[in-house]
Amino acid sequence: MTQWVYRFGGGKAEGRAEMRVLLGGKGANLAEMSNLGLPVPPGFTITTEACTHYYKNGQSYPAGLTDEVASALAEVGGLAGGIFGDTSKPLLVSVRSGARASMPGMMDTVLNLGLNRETVAGLAKLTGDERFAYDAYRRFIQMYSSVVLEMDHAHFESILEGEKDLKGAELDTDLEAEDLQRIADLYKAKVKKTLGRVFPDDPHEQLWGAIGAVFGSWSGQRAKTYRRLHNIPEDWGTAVNVQAMVFGNRGPTSATGVAFTRDPSTGERALYGEFLINAQGEDVVAGIRTPQSITRRAREAGGSKRSSMEEAMPESFAELSRIADRLEAHYRDMQDVEFTVQEGRLFMLQTRSGKRTAKAALRTAVEMVREGLISEDEAVLRVDPAALDQMLHPTLDPKAPRSVIVSGLAASPGAATGEIVFTADEAEHAASEGRDVILVRLETSPEDIHGMHAARGILTVRGGMTSHAAVVARGMGRPCVTGAGSLKIDMERRTMTAGGVTIGAGETVTVDGGAGKVYRGRIPTLLPELTGDFATLMGWADKKRRLKIRTNADTPADCRIALTFGAEGVGLCRTEHMFFEAERILAVRQMILADDVEGRKAALSKLLPMQRGDFTEIFRIMAGLPVTIRLLDPPLHEFLPHTQAEIADVAAASGADPHKLRARVQALSESNPMLGHRGCRLGITYPEIYEMQARAIFEAAIDIGVELGKSVALEVMIPLVGFKSELDLLAEKIAQVAAAVAAEKGTAPIYAIGTMIELPRAALRAADIAKTAEFFSFGTNDLTQTTLGVSRDDAGSFLNEYLARGLIERDPFVSLDTEGVGELIEIASERGRKTRPDIKLGICGEHGGDPDTIRFCESVKFDYVSCSPYRVPIARLAAAQAALKSARERD
Amino acid sequence: MTQWVYRFGGGKAEGRAEMRVLLGGKGANLAEMSNLGLPVPPGFTITTEACTHYYKNGQSYPAGLTDEVASALAEVGGLAGGIFGDTSKPLLVSVRSGARASMPGMMDTVLNLGLNRETVAGLAKLTGDERFAYDAYRRFIQMYSSVVLEMDHAHFESILEGEKDLKGAELDTDLEAEDLQRIADLYKAKVKKTLGRVFPDDPHEQLWGAIGAVFGSWSGQRAKTYRRLHNIPEDWGTAVNVQAMVFGNRGPTSATGVAFTRDPSTGERALYGEFLINAQGEDVVAGIRTPQSITRRAREAGGSKRSSMEEAMPESFAELSRIADRLEAHYRDMQDVEFTVQEGRLFMLQTRSGKRTAKAALRTAVEMVREGLISEDEAVLRVDPAALDQMLHPTLDPKAPRSVIVSGLAASPGAATGEIVFTADEAEHAASEGRDVILVRLETSPEDIHGMHAARGILTVRGGMTSHAAVVARGMGRPCVTGAGSLKIDMERRTMTAGGVTIGAGETVTVDGGAGKVYRGRIPTLLPELTGDFATLMGWADKKRRLKIRTNADTPADCRIALTFGAEGVGLCRTEHMFFEAERILAVRQMILADDVEGRKAALSKLLPMQRGDFTEIFRIMAGLPVTIRLLDPPLHEFLPHTQAEIADVAAASGADPHKLRARVQALSESNPMLGHRGCRLGITYPEIYEMQARAIFEAAIDIGVELGKSVALEVMIPLVGFKSELDLLAEKIAQVAAAVAAEKGTAPIYAIGTMIELPRAALRAADIAKTAEFFSFGTNDLTQTTLGVSRDDAGSFLNEYLARGLIERDPFVSLDTEGVGELIEIASERGRKTRPDIKLGICGEHGGDPDTIRFCESVKFDYVSCSPYRVPIARLAAAQAALKSARERD
Repeated sequence: MTQWVYRFGGGKAEGRAEMRVLLGGKGANLAEMSNLGLPVPPGFTITTEACTHYYKNGQSYPAGLTDEVASALAEVGGLAGGIFGDTSKPLLVSVRSGARASMPGMMDTVLNLGLNRETVAGLAKLTGDERFAYDAYRRFIQMYSSVVLEMDHAHFESILEGEKDLKGAELDTDLEAEDLQRIADLYKAKVKKTLGRVFPDDPHEQLWGAIGAVFGSWSGQRAKTYRRLHNIPEDWGTAVNVQAMVFGNRGPTSATGVAFTRDPSTGERALYGEFLINAQGEDVVAGIRTPQSITRRAREAGGSKRSSMEEAMPESFAELSRIADRLEAHYRDMQDVEFTVQEGRLFMLQTRSGKRTAKAALRTAVEMVREGLISEDEAVLRVDPAALDQMLHPTLDPKAPRSVIVSGLAASPGAATGEIVFTADEAEHAASEGRDVILVRLETSPEDIHGMHAARGILTVRGGMTSHAAVVARGMGRPCVTGAGSLKIDMERRTMTAGGVTIGAGETVTVDGGAGKVYRGRIPTLLPELTGDFATLMGWADKKRRLKIRTNADTPADCRIALTFGAEGVGLCRTEHMFFEAERILAVRQMILADDVEGRKAALSKLLPMQRGDFTEIFRIMAGLPVTIRLLDPPLHEFLPHTQAEIADVAAASGADPHKLRARVQALSESNPMLGHRGCRLGITYPEIYEMQARAIFEAAIDIGVELGKSVALEVMIPLVGFKSELDLLAEKIAQVAAAVAAEKGTAPIYAIGTMIELPRAALRAADIAKTAEFFSFGTNDLTQTTLGVSRDDAGSFLNEYLARGLIERDPFVSLDTEGVGELIEIASERGRKTRPDIKLGICGEHGGDPDTIRFCESVKFDYVSCSPYRVPIARLAAAQAALKSARERD
Repeated sequence: MTQWVYRFGGGKAEGRAEMRVLLGGKGANLAEMSNLGLPVPPGFTITTEACTHYYKNGQSYPAGLTDEVASALAEVGGLAGGIFGDTSKPLLVSVRSGARASMPGMMDTVLNLGLNRETVAGLAKLTGDERFAYDAYRRFIQMYSSVVLEMDHAHFESILEGEKDLKGAELDTDLEAEDLQRIADLYKAKVKKTLGRVFPDDPHEQLWGAIGAVFGSWSGQRAKTYRRLHNIPEDWGTAVNVQAMVFGNRGPTSATGVAFTRDPSTGERALYGEFLINAQGEDVVAGIRTPQSITRRAREAGGSKRSSMEEAMPESFAELSRIADRLEAHYRDMQDVEFTVQEGRLFMLQTRSGKRTAKAALRTAVEMVREGLISEDEAVLRVDPAALDQMLHPTLDPKAPRSVIVSGLAASPGAATGEIVFTADEAEHAASEGRDVILVRLETSPEDIHGMHAARGILTVRGGMTSHAAVVARGMGRPCVTGAGSLKIDMERRTMTAGGVTIGAGETVTVDGGAGKVYRGRIPTLLPELTGDFATLMGWADKKRRLKIRTNADTPADCRIALTFGAEGVGLCRTEHMFFEAERILAVRQMILADDVEGRKAALSKLLPMQRGDFTEIFRIMAGLPVTIRLLDPPLHEFLPHTQAEIADVAAASGADPHKLRARVQALSESNPMLGHRGCRLGITYPEIYEMQARAIFEAAIDIGVELGKSVALEVMIPLVGFKSELDLLAEKIAQVAAAVAAEKGTAPIYAIGTMIELPRAALRAADIAKTAEFFSFGTNDLTQTTLGVSRDDAGSFLNEYLARGLIERDPFVSLDTEGVGELIEIASERGRKTRPDIKLGICGEHGGDPDTIRFCESVKFDYVSCSPYRVPIARLAAAQAALKSARERD
């Protein structure tokens, strides 16, 4: 028989840390901490299998679950010294979700469950603290009603405010026991009036309601959004943790807090966190009260006068420090813990791997290797390659003049500039129009996640370093400033004001999440330093990886950046971008408007020296590393003006006949340019274009070969091949140009000829095409467009909805569709290798910088991946991880 | 050692009819006729392997060929009573090409080869006819210079005309021996002056020059064009036939002619053909002189006064008739023969399967079965399905008023209307712009083939029933009138005049190739009769085929036509066409312009009854045959106006706000609509559209089910599925509509749900998709576009060049690209069947009516093909042939 409930507490547990799939992360770690003998309030975990069963069976619980829960509850009571539902020694419990992957703030929690008119009286008597008991009661009603009964919490806030006004009370703590008792009654009356049903008094009914709410929240919209953003499958399900309550709100010797075993922003090895005296757990995370530091040092650094835990509760602090060290050594990773101090006694409520910035991840990984805690391989596997992104982008130029609007907490590092918006929906809308925005909120909540994702940076008035905004922003790699308390937001006027300066919606600000500051306008930025921990970890990664990392670079500047990031060659040099420069576009247009081959050749002869210059510089910079040059790809109409006004302008500027220009624009216009007259089709119908390009490439290669004293590792790439005959024809033409250049220069250019595989037909016919092609470069952008029949330019109108509704798991233009496009790539690789065992295979679509795609590329044993310069380090790390994982799977 | 030369003559031969691959059609049949003991001038055939060797080895002849030719030539001389190059008994030969497939008029021929200043004197002496000898000599120089030395024949014509003027001669025959001798000298002088080299006098040099020219003509542009149009591979090569000359120009008892064993236009069993007295062979085929009938009956029917062969040469005619019967019985097919009568003695120069109209093919096939000559299976295989096309199109309405411009020969049946053009290039250009044209020429030549292909109909002033124009037009199924002698063409003014009426380029005429008449303007047409031989053969075909034939029909009218053509269901009913009718487009636009779901639903509710009416009528007509209805497919912007003027018009007419309309047009516009927001993507983002359509379908199906007393065989098809999740979502929605309709009507609609497979991803994921889809319909138009990455709308700019240059063999939008798209179809079929063994598979792209594609569909064992109504009979016959061929391959 399936066991649906696993117990923990009293120094032992039925579960273990490894059972995270079954018990969820929180449940597995509570069990583990119990086994370690740490002070964990007793409890039990209802398994994720119960959740899966629940959804597979029309939302009904498995048989036997009720009995198992009842029996576990009795045992918990025994350990905690109470009885669930008993009026004299009432056991109160918390009910929390706990999914396999950590999902902060996403799932609902109910505290103080088990209270009713009778048990609250028992609790008051037992604790001798009537005020505490009734405060717990009214909190429970409020939380339960909002989470389980789905009532708007504004109802309860207005009752609470009303009572405070009546009593002339300013703070909640000014209310007395009888006030709180009356508030509880008013709450219950409100529930009855609003929902037409009585608030449940039976503790068991309360418990099953809460369990149902946790399961229900798994399919709630905000959980779904989080899972979509973090690629968590729908069918994992969540566990439910039921645990005896401990109270951080039993007076000045009680407290609740969260802590990290290392600084999650910097990775520094020091206990780091926040706590609130006389408060319940949710008060910290919710960001409603601004909490105090755990350590004295942090308090002093922050300039706060409110005493730290180290100072206020030295014994509990010392025990927490010891436990933190023990947990880190045990889990061999930085931990994020939740704790409560009840009347001087410390309880651990949670431990998990701590979310951290990329900088912190790097430092932690590198230092843990030095501390002997983990191996180099583990260090490489510990850092999320995608998270490196936040380190690889520019930071504010320290010399740039700036004008601070407001300061707050440095909640998530990085710098971002954008126009301010005040709601998540506005952020999403503006981002969809391609505008950069900074999301400004009083505080954020899970409902804001889509806007946070859309924003370049986030600014909140309330909340600490572990508030919702801070945690989520770090996870997403968005620069974030929290706790900017001096900022006033006027939602009606759509302005924010600080220090007498008012900024309206749409005005530009710059957020520096590393410094906790917000500036007016746009501040210039500097490239990141890529030394220290970064260089160390990258060095380890480079030792582990098999895939070469190249870059997609069209200009000398791109090539230089990519080299500093560690690129080992150019995987894609798009020659069309070179045609758009002001002095060239004229000649390009002359070429397009020419009436015959001679006219085209005359115009192309003007382009030849410029084009040769482009390649000369790139070859010089790359200094013998491989360079793949793709011949002209886009349809010619991309080089022509489009609107009537543009046509008139261009005609006037170039001296062309506007009628002729218009006629040519019209003749070249296409219904579906993506599937039109481009790529090698151009090379075939206008052979003189590729001839000019090939000549420029070969002449440059020979010159630089002499200059460098070694030959350029040149690869000439033909785009959009669908038929072997296309490649054959063009390869022959290019060979003729090579022969002509050889005859003129006295040196034969050395080059490989290859093709993009970016059409399904090319993938299928790879065996044939490989007879001529010496390399394949998978153009996954176009291959995705054709395989899925989706135009990237037009996909916005439905792809977002597909993602939101779970029809597809990931944006196929971000992470390779391995089931569809991936199968074509596998087919092409296999067939290409069958014809030509040493064929060079790589990827040059934008997917080349996506870690999941790189994992796929490792699995099909590509020679290299090529990505944008800024993603080169991400690719290096991802390639190392892919190699390590692939080696582990083989073992 | 390879044998490069095969001899024939003297009642025996080294070759046989079955050796057509090696000897070419002409050579194999000359050998066969020799073996049969028929009077064939002796000769030999250089094999196609020699040609292939020639092209594979830098245009050099295989070793040993020279010796084999010399030895064969000696034997030919022995049989013919002459010696090649000998001055007293000179042997003259013809050199002709002969490829594996018949290519009329495409390859070059040289007659009278072996003549020079000495041998011509010998010939004169031998024959006692000096005039004949020098005429042969000057003809030889002219022909050799033009074919082998590639000189413009205008040079020779002007010399000839000059001499005639000088002598006051009107006809060639007015010239005497010394005139012709001088002309020969002038010809040779012209050659020397023009080419800078002496005309070859050595007969062996002449022979090898001619052999080289035949090989060379294989790679000439006109041969390539013909091969492209007829799908003949480049690597087949041509044989060369060298044969002793016989002369039809030795006086009134000599003649030359061509004959068919049955009438190639009607199929009637009667010798049919034309001849010219005192002429050489090329004079008939070239259409320069208008020839006489073979039979008296034909002469009388044509109202000619010039005596028939039957009357002028009764003995030769009788022998020709006997030989014709013998050849038809031997080959078991209608033959097209060439013959020469030399001084009363008949020689056979060629026999081959006769080209015929579809009507003649049908009649011949059906009658040969009745005559016991062939089986029903053979009859079915004998008729080219594509050729049926010409019978399936409308003929002129006999009641329609008409005004004849000119009459000529009924050279190729069918009726066509179009604007007149006077050159092949104009015809091709106009056709590429979508205009229907009639090509008007004095006479046609192989250089005109591309224009004949582009034209709807052809009209020539000169030439008979076997002239170039007539033969090619019949092969292409183009209506053609030849020999319209009263027509004057003025190329400068670009007009044609007949009977005092002048028609200019661009004016519309109608050609009736079945009646041999040309009319002014457009004449209304009638549907063809599909009875008699057609019905008989179709009956045999239907017994043989396995594939069901459905039709692509969007309207009741289409459905009715398709049923009369034998359709067995509707394979594709496109619902979007129904949205364009005037009264509906308003509601469609309201729906698109609506601000919310409610607005859309209101507009859709207006469309519901109309849409239901469409389906009701179609279901009623199809009376229980399967009907596949595809839900809305095109992007919504297709229903909106596009230009500013159209937008203003539509806004005014519909009362819509023009600004809003413009904004919506802009918002919906797409870069690549083919890959955009269409198909099931619309169904998912605007679910109310498919809901309306499903409701209309189900309501109509239930109503007609009651009316017919049997249920409608309904298949609901979701377009553009790429992910199983899309189909699942929509299948679920449609099931909900079905349930709702069932509840309202008290009857549950019976239907199958399926999908188009038109994206590569869908083909690859077929195993998954088949879990939900009960049928796949391969949308090969879109599947071709995505697999090849070619937009059909934009392909004109390069695909024609690809075809012309042999980069691809066939237009992939006409005949399925079996190597690329075909492999995806095979993958999808196999995977779909693995999941669901009884899944129904069919094709509904325009390829469904292409015989080669149907052969592919048979090979992957589809259940049906669906094509346009007019192609249904073609598909029925092609399916039968595919089944027969497939059965033969299994045996």
